[in-house]
Amino acid sequence: MKNILTVLFGLIVSLTFGQIEKIEPPFWWSGMQSNQLQLMCYGNDISKYNIEIEGITITDITKTENSNYVFITIDTKDVPSGKVLINFKENEKVAFSESYEFKARRKGSVDRKGFDSSDVMYLIMPDRFANGNLDNDSHKDTVEKANRSNPGGRHGGDIQGVIDHLDYLNDLGATALWSTPLLEDNESTYSYHTYAQSDLYKIDSRYGTNEDYKRLATEVHKLDMKLIMDYVTNHWGSKHWMIQDLPTKDWIHQWPEGFRRSNYRMTTQFDTNASTVDAKGCMDGWFDTTMPDMNQSNPLLLNYITQNAIWWIEYADLDGFRVDTYSYNDKEGIAKWTKAIMDEYPKFNIVGEVWMHDQAQMAYWQKDSKIGAIDNYNSHLPSVMDFTLHDAVTVMFDEDGNSWDKGMIRAYENFTNDFLYPDIDNILLFAGNHDTNRINEIYQSDINKYKMVMTLIFTTRGIPQIYYGDEIGMLGNRDKKGDGDIRRDFPGGWPDDKRSAFISETSKDKVGGRTQDEEAFHAFTKKVLNWRKSSIAIHKGKLLQYIPFNHVYVYFRYTENERIMVVINNNSENQELDMTRFEEGLKGLKMGKDIITDTTIDVSENIAIPAKTSMIIELQ
Amino acid sequence: MKNILTVLFGLIVSLTFGQIEKIEPPFWWSGMQSNQLQLMCYGNDISKYNIEIEGITITDITKTENSNYVFITIDTKDVPSGKVLINFKENEKVAFSESYEFKARRKGSVDRKGFDSSDVMYLIMPDRFANGNLDNDSHKDTVEKANRSNPGGRHGGDIQGVIDHLDYLNDLGATALWSTPLLEDNESTYSYHTYAQSDLYKIDSRYGTNEDYKRLATEVHKLDMKLIMDYVTNHWGSKHWMIQDLPTKDWIHQWPEGFRRSNYRMTTQFDTNASTVDAKGCMDGWFDTTMPDMNQSNPLLLNYITQNAIWWIEYADLDGFRVDTYSYNDKEGIAKWTKAIMDEYPKFNIVGEVWMHDQAQMAYWQKDSKIGAIDNYNSHLPSVMDFTLHDAVTVMFDEDGNSWDKGMIRAYENFTNDFLYPDIDNILLFAGNHDTNRINEIYQSDINKYKMVMTLIFTTRGIPQIYYGDEIGMLGNRDKKGDGDIRRDFPGGWPDDKRSAFISETSKDKVGGRTQDEEAFHAFTKKVLNWRKSSIAIHKGKLLQYIPFNHVYVYFRYTENERIMVVINNNSENQELDMTRFEEGLKGLKMGKDIITDTTIDVSENIAIPAKTSMIIELQ
Repeated sequence: MKNILTVLFGLIVSLTFGQIEKIEPPFWWSGMQSNQLQLMCYGNDISKYNIEIEGITITDITKTENSNYVFITIDTKDVPSGKVLINFKENEKVAFSESYEFKARRKGSVDRKGFDSSDVMYLIMPDRFANGNLDNDSHKDTVEKANRSNPGGRHGGDIQGVIDHLDYLNDLGATALWSTPLLEDNESTYSYHTYAQSDLYKIDSRYGTNEDYKRLATEVHKLDMKLIMDYVTNHWGSKHWMIQDLPTKDWIHQWPEGFRRSNYRMTTQFDTNASTVDAKGCMDGWFDTTMPDMNQSNPLLLNYITQNAIWWIEYADLDGFRVDTYSYNDKEGIAKWTKAIMDEYPKFNIVGEVWMHDQAQMAYWQKDSKIGAIDNYNSHLPSVMDFTLHDAVTVMFDEDGNSWDKGMIRAYENFTNDFLYPDIDNILLFAGNHDTNRINEIYQSDINKYKMVMTLIFTTRGIPQIYYGDEIGMLGNRDKKGDGDIRRDFPGGWPDDKRSAFISETSKDKVGGRTQDEEAFHAFTKKVLNWRKSSIAIHKGKLLQYIPFNHVYVYFRYTENERIMVVINNNSENQELDMTRFEEGLKGLKMGKDIITDTTIDVSENIAIPAKTSMIIELQ
Repeated sequence: MKNILTVLFGLIVSLTFGQIEKIEPPFWWSGMQSNQLQLMCYGNDISKYNIEIEGITITDITKTENSNYVFITIDTKDVPSGKVLINFKENEKVAFSESYEFKARRKGSVDRKGFDSSDVMYLIMPDRFANGNLDNDSHKDTVEKANRSNPGGRHGGDIQGVIDHLDYLNDLGATALWSTPLLEDNESTYSYHTYAQSDLYKIDSRYGTNEDYKRLATEVHKLDMKLIMDYVTNHWGSKHWMIQDLPTKDWIHQWPEGFRRSNYRMTTQFDTNASTVDAKGCMDGWFDTTMPDMNQSNPLLLNYITQNAIWWIEYADLDGFRVDTYSYNDKEGIAKWTKAIMDEYPKFNIVGEVWMHDQAQMAYWQKDSKIGAIDNYNSHLPSVMDFTLHDAVTVMFDEDGNSWDKGMIRAYENFTNDFLYPDIDNILLFAGNHDTNRINEIYQSDINKYKMVMTLIFTTRGIPQIYYGDEIGMLGNRDKKGDGDIRRDFPGGWPDDKRSAFISETSKDKVGGRTQDEEAFHAFTKKVLNWRKSSIAIHKGKLLQYIPFNHVYVYFRYTENERIMVVINNNSENQELDMTRFEEGLKGLKMGKDIITDTTIDVSENIAIPAKTSMIIELQ
């Protein structure tokens, strides 16, 4: 039954004639901002037919070297909701017809508001979070079957598992959910990460159905949370049906030797000294053997992925995209893709993975970047990830702070270049994700260091993101043990788990709850995140920072009406702060409350802060 | 006699009346681009007089809280060369008069061409280079006397010593001479570095006279070389006569506690999050106890140092400035200073010390910077120093090149951000200077590493600078042994030296010449620098670089008519290069000559390069 539903939602199959296998997008909406829609029609020798659509103006028909494809562009201005008939004609006669539907848009769809710095994003890998439906762990639609004992195998986590634990996320204080990709990945091994997608209009059968995904969005929205889709523009999976029967040779980047791995040197995107062969080797090289590199300079492909992205926003009622390997794409193509989506939904948000180690290079990719403008480039991408902050927080709490450029100085220095970013609030902050060593592995389960890291991530400018399990102190070492180790199953996500870290230690149910250690990580995270929900100064306030001395970093976030003072003492000794130095931040306020310890503090006099702790002081 | 000359050139003293001690600038020129001249008059209660200048329009008279000063601004448009009389009047009567001279300008002065990327700059510390005049090692004008056995003392090097060895520099292939400051530094100790200047119109008596400096310029120009003055805008010496009797309290940055050291965090110049107290602590803090921090936002001071700079260009016929601690200055003030000089001499060149470790931050300071423009800032500074390249070359030859971001990758990555700089050819390149560990200390006298470092510095884009003694493998460890160790005396610069490294091993004179090791360093340097003189591709050509593989970095410099291929093999094994990869750089050329080994190379086939060597191949 589920499979039949999938087919109905994912595809339109012409059972009567059989000459057409797919039309994509499978349906569309009336009243969209863009007036042009490209219909990809696929079927045996489909290109030999002449095409008409009743009541619709066809503005372009493009045929390719593969006669199984035809791309029809139609004018959708003023098209009413309802169905139209696409006639495929041969010798002036209709050989067969396809019905195509324009649905009515959800009210206010165009004005949907994307995630922003008032949010806290929670990142999960759905295969590893919770198994809510045991029936779809393996599925006939997809090759790889469940094997929870394989660190690189499918473990059975799914959309229902996420839905089942939305209350947990909401209670924790997360307000936005980013799941790594959920679209079908039909590789025979290692498919759980789902970045090698085999069908862009179909949720992977082992995660659920398109309807399940839509239901996830509904449930997320009921909690006033947001849903962010992980979109992959750079590559598809080798098992994608269009890869198996390419519309055009240049649909993907082809190499004489069949496969060439990207050199991953993304700096070739703007390096005026870069050789052409290296630039091509980065952008056109494949991310991995199972991931053919898409050619976004091919307008047919570009339209295809643009419409697919918009289709998912409109279909599932999304609040944002995270775009994988953004800086590996054809940069002009990805800018057009991004702009088209933002033109359709001006208040939407899209954060791109621009994994670079230099603020100018990251700022290059943000919309209206002055750095990009030097290169005559504008990505139109609203948000980028703060990888340099990640670089800093993953080393600085183990460093000697008496150095000129190490320890807390790294945090300070990261923010000295904020002026390079056109929109500094729209930056994603993180201590780890599904591709990095886990933060609690790096700091060897030291909760004091976790608290200092997260104090910074949760209270500085930008949008905090946490990686599932970090809030319970989960470990994982990618460098030594591989990807599987940083993508461990969340304890309690599987019915046969002996205990559940979704449940508190004190309120443990029939299975055991969080361990005492896990509880401590969780309690801190929950406390700060829930407090953060109502602090406008943290969401949108200006940042005022002070040069760290004695391993102590002090900064303020402030609006006209609210002032927060944050102190992070990475010194192994208690420290006393001379408060006269912070006059500009205090602005005459004399009292404060540390929301971590719930203690009232007289900030008009020197304050003491214990070694290896942080304070978040609401000034009054 | 010398002293009398100094007085005549440096000052105008009114012997008749005695009411005026100084007028500065001591003289000026007719026909300057700027029409305004600010005369600083100093004398006991000088401000009580009314002032008139015959035939000259006074546009402003500014008196300060110190009655010993009056600042007269005059209109110099169309002022002829010759002398005018400045009348100081009391009760409508001339109390006394001063003669003031406008000299005729040197022909073509305005069009003087500054140093550029066709040059190679040789940096000396004059006290440590050569002692050409034994009579001025100690001098009655200045407190500190010679003591060559003190690493932080005066060693006796002087202008005559430099003049005596210009042939050596010319023979080596240097085309521009940057000497650390030569103006008087009358501190009682540690005055040899001469950055704590006590008189801005007077060459330090232990180096020679103003006339000697002018003669140095003349001799430099005879060899078709260029002379670059080290100008210090940020601070003066505590013994400067104006510091001893401040014209205005805000002539310098005052601190309640008398002295406050700069926090040296130059990022506060643009950090939008920086606290005011930190920004002020950087810019207004003193560089050192003996160096009061000048307030360039005081227009009287700004005019004073602007005119002083122009005076030296015009007087000594200079070809450029190196500006000390450029990024510590009041940034608006230093921009005005820089612009005024460049307006006066549009083809001049000025390189600023912007000691930062981030290309965006360095590029911020270059004229017409798009990065600066984000902050509404334009320094007007034509040239900056490539400190990130320095950072790279001082570590990368000791690193494992199999890393993602170490070894030769550091050089490659440095150039990926070239697009951030508005004028990439006008960047100073160096492996060391008077403030850093010596390059041959870092690489423990390994000549192979020296050759690889210098191959890069001499052939990539920008203006190479070498630090005196590097070309003979001189050692010096600042971190462990202090400044004196990196400012050792050049062997042979003193008459009683046992041998002279100015003289080749084979042609040694009555004293011994270079050691065999020194000769090897020298021969390489001389060979490449002399070859560089005629390579337009190296001077002005575009750079084309390739991602380093196997520790081998390959790049090309090219113009329409000339192509140079540079290969640096930092691998400890010999390497073979697949030349098909370099098609774009080779552009069909099949033969080349390695100018280091003088061997002809067939570049149409794979080429072999020995371990730890470099090649500079002129393609034919």
